[in-house]
Amino acid sequence: MEKMKRAERMVAITQVLMLKPNVLTPLTLFAERFGTAKSTISEDLMAVKGSLLLSGQGHLETMSGAAGGVRYIPEISKEEASIVLSELADRLSDKERILAGGFLYMTDLLFDPSVLRPLGLIFAGAFRDKKPDVVVTIETKGIPLALVTAEALGLPMVVIRSGNKVTEGSSVSINYVSGSSRRIQTMSLSRRALEPQRRVLVIDDFMKAGGTALGIKNLMEEFEANVVGMGVLVEARMTEEPKLVEGYLALLQLKELNIATGKTSVVPMFNL
Amino acid sequence: MEKMKRAERMVAITQVLMLKPNVLTPLTLFAERFGTAKSTISEDLMAVKGSLLLSGQGHLETMSGAAGGVRYIPEISKEEASIVLSELADRLSDKERILAGGFLYMTDLLFDPSVLRPLGLIFAGAFRDKKPDVVVTIETKGIPLALVTAEALGLPMVVIRSGNKVTEGSSVSINYVSGSSRRIQTMSLSRRALEPQRRVLVIDDFMKAGGTALGIKNLMEEFEANVVGMGVLVEARMTEEPKLVEGYLALLQLKELNIATGKTSVVPMFNL
Repeated sequence: MEKMKRAERMVAITQVLMLKPNVLTPLTLFAERFGTAKSTISEDLMAVKGSLLLSGQGHLETMSGAAGGVRYIPEISKEEASIVLSELADRLSDKERILAGGFLYMTDLLFDPSVLRPLGLIFAGAFRDKKPDVVVTIETKGIPLALVTAEALGLPMVVIRSGNKVTEGSSVSINYVSGSSRRIQTMSLSRRALEPQRRVLVIDDFMKAGGTALGIKNLMEEFEANVVGMGVLVEARMTEEPKLVEGYLALLQLKELNIATGKTSVVPMFNL
Repeated sequence: MEKMKRAERMVAITQVLMLKPNVLTPLTLFAERFGTAKSTISEDLMAVKGSLLLSGQGHLETMSGAAGGVRYIPEISKEEASIVLSELADRLSDKERILAGGFLYMTDLLFDPSVLRPLGLIFAGAFRDKKPDVVVTIETKGIPLALVTAEALGLPMVVIRSGNKVTEGSSVSINYVSGSSRRIQTMSLSRRALEPQRRVLVIDDFMKAGGTALGIKNLMEEFEANVVGMGVLVEARMTEEPKLVEGYLALLQLKELNIATGKTSVVPMFNL
């Protein structure tokens, strides 16, 4: 292979690091791959670091020492986050999204990677300081949102099952009252899915009364987990009734959903 | 802002394009952002293109004309794909993964973004030529795999619900016999979730007899969809019994799972 120039190496380094966000790559890997001295790679990295800083959409973190290396921390700029949430609020405020029973149709957006990716970065930015070990959600519609958040933080995801469907060895089940259905329901998690005493970030797509969120908190206690954060994409805030849980972060608020008039109003909430 | 040097612009361009894989970005966006001529950006892009080509892990596609621009197509090299599948096969061949009933515990891996990402790229590479419009899966465990595949292809995802849980307007349900449980089950999909006559790529985590896969194919017929491809992560191949569906791609084969001896054998299948 012909010897690469600095600019080419910088692009190649950027690609390798962005492909494995949050993963520490030792400098020797680049030195071997490009056939250059480690000191040259250090200079390349300084230059890459500088270029990325300008964008506000992810930066490099270098760690020195024998176990050292460099990793790419994905981020979203405040400006970009505001635009993303405003646009999403507008899309959700479409009267075509009103479903029978007073629900809001969000599934198409919750399953669209191009919509999800920035939301994962917003949640990651809000909760990185809490140093979670794992992202927890409950099936089904919150799974993609939890996954992109987990990836942005470099963490695994754990999915609580509805009902008693767990077939993976011994499991823990609890009953809870879902605010929307007002019925007693069950949620379960396999013992082997979550080690005891983890720092847990809970992510879900929607919160009405907070019954499901409270259920998740109670289930997490059974695993001696420490819930260090809770994020929901949309919270319904159509009455002044307090939620069953506190201290969560909602990115959007559903203010109005009127089946009779066909008026819905979703507004961005995140104060960046 | 101080004028950026070529190497800095090349890094910034790489980052912008990798953050939005498969999305066409007009050259004027870069020209405006960096305050340079479009011809300069063209030269930058040529250089970036060359650097990325060396890695085999994603390339740039440029389209000329008024509606033209450039996009990043994520890829995985054959070498990397082989390593990923071999390592995953080894991890799955651990006897600790044998569950009561002769199942294989895969959930931890199916919910781990660092495991999923390369698998999405492998499926995307295998099916990109079929030009799917949408990736379809059935809840729950296949959702993350389908999502990363959809993102690698720049497509939305649609999730079929088990049972009759759809609350999103009119839906289509079909009955099917799951090979593993030998029971009649129901799967449903909201009418508004999938437009008629789409080109569908089906992705799922596991195939035993193929009953679920056949059910999905039948349900897709109700939506006049054209199933252009089907990919599963693991197929059970412990007997010579033919599957209920044909023409699917399995990345791994479960050859043996012996509860008595505790021996499991999973082997990589994908001939790259």
